[in-house]
Amino acid sequence: MTLPVPFAQRLTARTLALNTRLCLGLDPREAAYSDVAALRAHTLALLDACADLVACVKPQLAFYEALGLAGMELLEEVCEAARRLDLPIILDAKRGDIGSTAAAYARAWLGGRHAGAALTVSPWLGFETLEPFVAAAQQHGGAVFVLVKTSNPGQADVQGGGNAERVADELTRLGAQQGGVLSNIGLSSIGAVIGATHPQELSAWRARLPHSPLLLPGLGAQGAQARDLAGAFFEGGTGAVVSASRGIQYAAGCDLGAALRAARGFRDELNAALERAERS
Amino acid sequence: MTLPVPFAQRLTARTLALNTRLCLGLDPREAAYSDVAALRAHTLALLDACADLVACVKPQLAFYEALGLAGMELLEEVCEAARRLDLPIILDAKRGDIGSTAAAYARAWLGGRHAGAALTVSPWLGFETLEPFVAAAQQHGGAVFVLVKTSNPGQADVQGGGNAERVADELTRLGAQQGGVLSNIGLSSIGAVIGATHPQELSAWRARLPHSPLLLPGLGAQGAQARDLAGAFFEGGTGAVVSASRGIQYAAGCDLGAALRAARGFRDELNAALERAERS
Repeated sequence: MTLPVPFAQRLTARTLALNTRLCLGLDPREAAYSDVAALRAHTLALLDACADLVACVKPQLAFYEALGLAGMELLEEVCEAARRLDLPIILDAKRGDIGSTAAAYARAWLGGRHAGAALTVSPWLGFETLEPFVAAAQQHGGAVFVLVKTSNPGQADVQGGGNAERVADELTRLGAQQGGVLSNIGLSSIGAVIGATHPQELSAWRARLPHSPLLLPGLGAQGAQARDLAGAFFEGGTGAVVSASRGIQYAAGCDLGAALRAARGFRDELNAALERAERS
Repeated sequence: MTLPVPFAQRLTARTLALNTRLCLGLDPREAAYSDVAALRAHTLALLDACADLVACVKPQLAFYEALGLAGMELLEEVCEAARRLDLPIILDAKRGDIGSTAAAYARAWLGGRHAGAALTVSPWLGFETLEPFVAAAQQHGGAVFVLVKTSNPGQADVQGGGNAERVADELTRLGAQQGGVLSNIGLSSIGAVIGATHPQELSAWRARLPHSPLLLPGLGAQGAQARDLAGAFFEGGTGAVVSASRGIQYAAGCDLGAALRAARGFRDELNAALERAERS
């Protein structure tokens, strides 16, 4: 039996080989298209066109679920296409539940045909509820990205008061406890979501989560700027990816050329920010 | 245009007409069956057999997702069957996301063919993120059940320290603000999940959430006892439902007779507890 190559390992290798820290968000927003066929065609064409510009892709399950069964079929097709392109997949599903129900979600999105993928997970139900997800990720060479501090203005309502920090510390503890830190890259399979909209805090989160791959959403439509995000990365520019969704996929309506230029722009701005940070 | 009858109204009417506060959890646990066809047959037969014993049904999405596309088709079939039986549906999906993504989840599970259903929702991303769900529920005659204090031992990790209480107070504020309290039954479309495994606290949660329908999971397999739960109800025995899943569906393997006896037992124990409480 061949052991699967862990998600963090594949993500890091790709980041370095292609010199990109960009994560392509794939949100098939119904309103942007005449029908599901057009949406499918554009989403798959975008994935194909952007493959060499991005470190990974992040389908947002909400938009697929909103299309009903046809959407769930499209999600499988998008994941299959990403696997053919050797693109690491982050399933942005924000799942969370208790006990055997959490284990069922983990089977659904970290096992079977989704083995090797990463999944975003909510910590609201308590630390024990993360364990089935972490176990499945480790078994199948995947990863989890736990929602620590999200990109929206209202996150502090519930994540404030030290709650986000306590979740982060638990992730660090869990990562070490499971012996899952890959010594060559310094990363475990237990990642964290930290909104790119909190640029002043990124160095502190990087330090607080020393072994977690970081997923930073919020680039583009949500207002985060690539030039502010260097603090989230390790020296050498690994350890984090920054995602843009609308800002690429709908850069100018559904124009593929505009989407490509937007992706290239984000990639280059991130790299420039990292170069400036290393020089200073 | 006919306005839809709100979820809370339908739930209350059914509770009183059939004298039942039981919610039937429908978790098609793969391991219990030889194949998806057997699982489908048992799940639909159970729904049919239990319809008059329960106030509502609660499909747990994790178990359907774990079956892939066939599972998602089964979920639609189960919901269609429940609608034919006039059974209010609580989709236990524990969804949560921000802005337009939350709106996509709300379209997926509270609109379209799921108009009139209720959805469980996580508050971790902040209070603003509840609003698209509440808006969709009100528009379509559905409801949301926000995870306030869950039934699992580790809930206090994140829900402790006053967090569950702050979420509850926000639900009460939101319910009043939206003018959504139905005066005849005293309930809004903004419900709360409170684990049945916290029996000493139920009266306090009932008082703190004066207009929220309460969903109490944890009966049976998780160890909660029907006799301890009267505190969650209004006088007259409305305002809450108690769910059992494994404890009914797999009462004795997949035996339908045993499942029926279990459901009848839970229903009667809940009613007896309410009668004792009213006498005392």
